[in-house]
Amino acid sequence: MNNPFFKNNGPFKIDDIFGFLNISNNDNFKFDLIYDVKDLSSAQNNELTFFHSKKYSLIAAKTKASYCLTLKSLKDYLPKECKKIFVDNVLLSISQITSKFYPDSVNDTFDSTVKDINKFRFKNKVKHGLNVLIGDDVKIGINCSIGHNTIIEKNVIIGSNCSIGSNTIIRNTIIEDNVSILDGCIIGKKGFGFLPNNKKNLRYPHIGIVIIGENSEIGCGSTIDRGSMSNTIIGKNTFLDNQVHVAHNNKIGDNCIIAGQVGMAGSSKLGNNVMIGGQAGISGHLKVGNNVQIGGGSGVIKDIPDNAKVMGYPSRDLRQFLKDNK
Amino acid sequence: MNNPFFKNNGPFKIDDIFGFLNISNNDNFKFDLIYDVKDLSSAQNNELTFFHSKKYSLIAAKTKASYCLTLKSLKDYLPKECKKIFVDNVLLSISQITSKFYPDSVNDTFDSTVKDINKFRFKNKVKHGLNVLIGDDVKIGINCSIGHNTIIEKNVIIGSNCSIGSNTIIRNTIIEDNVSILDGCIIGKKGFGFLPNNKKNLRYPHIGIVIIGENSEIGCGSTIDRGSMSNTIIGKNTFLDNQVHVAHNNKIGDNCIIAGQVGMAGSSKLGNNVMIGGQAGISGHLKVGNNVQIGGGSGVIKDIPDNAKVMGYPSRDLRQFLKDNK
Amino acid sequence: MNNPFFKNNGPFKIDDIFGFLNISNNDNFKFDLIYDVKDLSSAQNNELTFFHSKKYSLIAAKTKASYCLTLKSLKDYLPKECKKIFVDNVLLSISQITSKFYPDSVNDTFDSTVKDINKFRFKNKVKHGLNVLIGDDVKIGINCSIGHNTIIEKNVIIGSNCSIGSNTIIRNTIIEDNVSILDGCIIGKKGFGFLPNNKKNLRYPHIGIVIIGENSEIGCGSTIDRGSMSNTIIGKNTFLDNQVHVAHNNKIGDNCIIAGQVGMAGSSKLGNNVMIGGQAGISGHLKVGNNVQIGGGSGVIKDIPDNAKVMGYPSRDLRQFLKDNK
Repeated sequence: MNNPFFKNNGPFKIDDIFGFLNISNNDNFKFDLIYDVKDLSSAQNNELTFFHSKKYSLIAAKTKASYCLTLKSLKDYLPKECKKIFVDNVLLSISQITSKFYPDSVNDTFDSTVKDINKFRFKNKVKHGLNVLIGDDVKIGINCSIGHNTIIEKNVIIGSNCSIGSNTIIRNTIIEDNVSILDGCIIGKKGFGFLPNNKKNLRYPHIGIVIIGENSEIGCGSTIDRGSMSNTIIGKNTFLDNQVHVAHNNKIGDNCIIAGQVGMAGSSKLGNNVMIGGQAGISGHLKVGNNVQIGGGSGVIKDIPDNAKVMGYPSRDLRQFLKDNK
Repeated sequence: MNNPFFKNNGPFKIDDIFGFLNISNNDNFKFDLIYDVKDLSSAQNNELTFFHSKKYSLIAAKTKASYCLTLKSLKDYLPKECKKIFVDNVLLSISQITSKFYPDSVNDTFDSTVKDINKFRFKNKVKHGLNVLIGDDVKIGINCSIGHNTIIEKNVIIGSNCSIGSNTIIRNTIIEDNVSILDGCIIGKKGFGFLPNNKKNLRYPHIGIVIIGENSEIGCGSTIDRGSMSNTIIGKNTFLDNQVHVAHNNKIGDNCIIAGQVGMAGSSKLGNNVMIGGQAGISGHLKVGNNVQIGGGSGVIKDIPDNAKVMGYPSRDLRQFLKDNK
Repeated sequence: MNNPFFKNNGPFKIDDIFGFLNISNNDNFKFDLIYDVKDLSSAQNNELTFFHSKKYSLIAAKTKASYCLTLKSLKDYLPKECKKIFVDNVLLSISQITSKFYPDSVNDTFDSTVKDINKFRFKNKVKHGLNVLIGDDVKIGINCSIGHNTIIEKNVIIGSNCSIGSNTIIRNTIIEDNVSILDGCIIGKKGFGFLPNNKKNLRYPHIGIVIIGENSEIGCGSTIDRGSMSNTIIGKNTFLDNQVHVAHNNKIGDNCIIAGQVGMAGSSKLGNNVMIGGQAGISGHLKVGNNVQIGGGSGVIKDIPDNAKVMGYPSRDLRQFLKDNK
């Protein structure tokens, strides 16, 4: 994952990392500089990753990260050349480290750099409504329109021929060409991810962004959260209806059609040409294949293979659902 | 259906119609002027309609349209005096023609005619908040209030004694007397109707409007889309709770009570005195009778007769549902 | 219940009360002044309450109210010293009386006292965006931020270290310390409570408020309605995801986690440490115990004891649900 928006405060020395975690460097790792924190599959040399559950052991075995926060019980799944830092609570520790690299990604206070669009050079290039607010360094292509009262915070790149509605808020997002985002959307805020903790939950950083592919449309009142360690992605020519909720880290393919009030919990992956009926829900960490059709109101709680048609709560083969309910 | 808002660019000569479709006038229809495009039941003499599915054969048999876009296989359902224009893809073709008659109805870029309400004559007649934006030719009755940051675009008529909340957007809508629309609603945008197409879906025009009957109330954060070829209608004294979604072409009767987060897919018809519990969903193209009660969370996927009480997903007789789940 | 916000127009003489109801004082109650209207459990001496259903007979037996609107058939459940006023429709009558005590609580026209935050003394104390509107007598603690276009109407108290997003509307609400309210929320509007009536439903007053406990977070696009006769309460360190709807009079405990698009109908009570998956719905007037886990998409239609794990529609024991759906 590239991170074009959040400022990386690294590199940090490996001793700093131990210091942040308040643990000692028992293995005497030395002199190394850590340049970034990433997930198992995208981390590279001189970067830090984390591995907290056997579920990810296949990916862990191939990580190229120089360092990995993990549990002692998981150490044998990791490559020999990956240096292990043992902690008691992997997610808590990676959250603490990520907050040091990316302090701006934890909280989402409003962007105080925004100014009225009339104060920008591109005011004449963009067809815009009244009270449009634009943050620092926002990039907007040609032939775009932005409706009244809309706020484009910093960390946004908008392609050409895009139409953004009124009363919409966008941050930490890349929008490709020919995208329509309708009124009242909220795109790019931090996801609903935190470490539950009595008295005061601990918010972890969300350094991912939202990417919306070309020719797509996002319906009114929809919310799309940015990713935590990876991005939230809407494919090309994918249409979302009103009041859809796409949580953090979801990847939606191309040519999908998602009807009103559908909700997707985090970190699931939809293939291409997926159709989802109104009010259906997709649980987290699932894989839905290509050309899948999911009936309205369905509750999807396990993976769905390519070309399947499902319906029901929990969802099952459509013919079975119809037979069960004759 | 009357269309009070969208400018009709017709009439067009019949040869122009063939030209738009890029097909030839094999039947040598001549000299006719087509004044409008409408659905099967409302089209009249000198107007064009469309007929694409046997499902509508009973209505097709009675159409008064002079011309009809249709398939060769459907021609015998139509009256003899209705002239048939054969196309391969009826919906695509009617969409292309409608775009010629009503080019403003395809996309919903924000209304650039809006101005601060203080620039209007009625500024003293309406109790209004700050930053209220009003489009050209909006009509507002006596004794109304409009909250802060609300946008009433062109193509809106508001009756008397109406209360519009804050942060609400309304376009292409007729609101009768004594209606309350609460905060954060989006009313009158184009529906989620398009012709799926690889690489780039084709948006079809939405020339219908929204009509909200007298004494009704629309809860916070609700969305009501305008119709494609007919109107979306909320009856009199019908109350919608928060976060309700009413898709295009739905007709809701009088004295209905619709609880929070209910969703209605397109083109369904609810009778009078219908009660719907929270989060229930109504599929498209259904008929729900008078005095029907639909339990919370239900998924309605077929017609419901008058006076029925249903619950479940899919919904069934309420007693049966309770018995099944004892 | 204390009512810090709505102006009480009382006391009223008991004869005024009979006059408002257009009935006669057959029992010759005299000279008494009624200072307030409250529910059965919170009403005190010289206050009026109401009792309309046997369901509440245990609470009714212990009421300390001096007067009670009730049905003749229910009179024996009330304490002897509580003076009974018999009416035909208890809810209609209490609604009429409450409207006299609290005329401002029936309708929610926008707050016309709001002004740009830059006109307030605390403009420098609060980190704020553009176009922020603040009502009369709003109180804001130290170290708070308020995003662009947000409206804090009168009758709001905000603690310290709170973060309010952009495009949010808050009224009739107490927010404790360290609370985050994200973008596009609508908090404190009247609930969806009214007396259905042909031609014109009768809205009853909502004199309750919303209270959000310390360290809590409310996700984007969520709606929380204020209570009718009691308050709507979100506990401490309770996190709500996006597009959640909490109807009037609900009480949610501490340390709860409520995922996206969950909806709660009115007057239910959740314990502490409750986890609710996305799109689940909780019917009205239920009691959900401590440490309960409710699976995504569930429909809860009866009480749930402490420590239970449930899923399904209607919800049942989680193991049973998984077994039923193997």
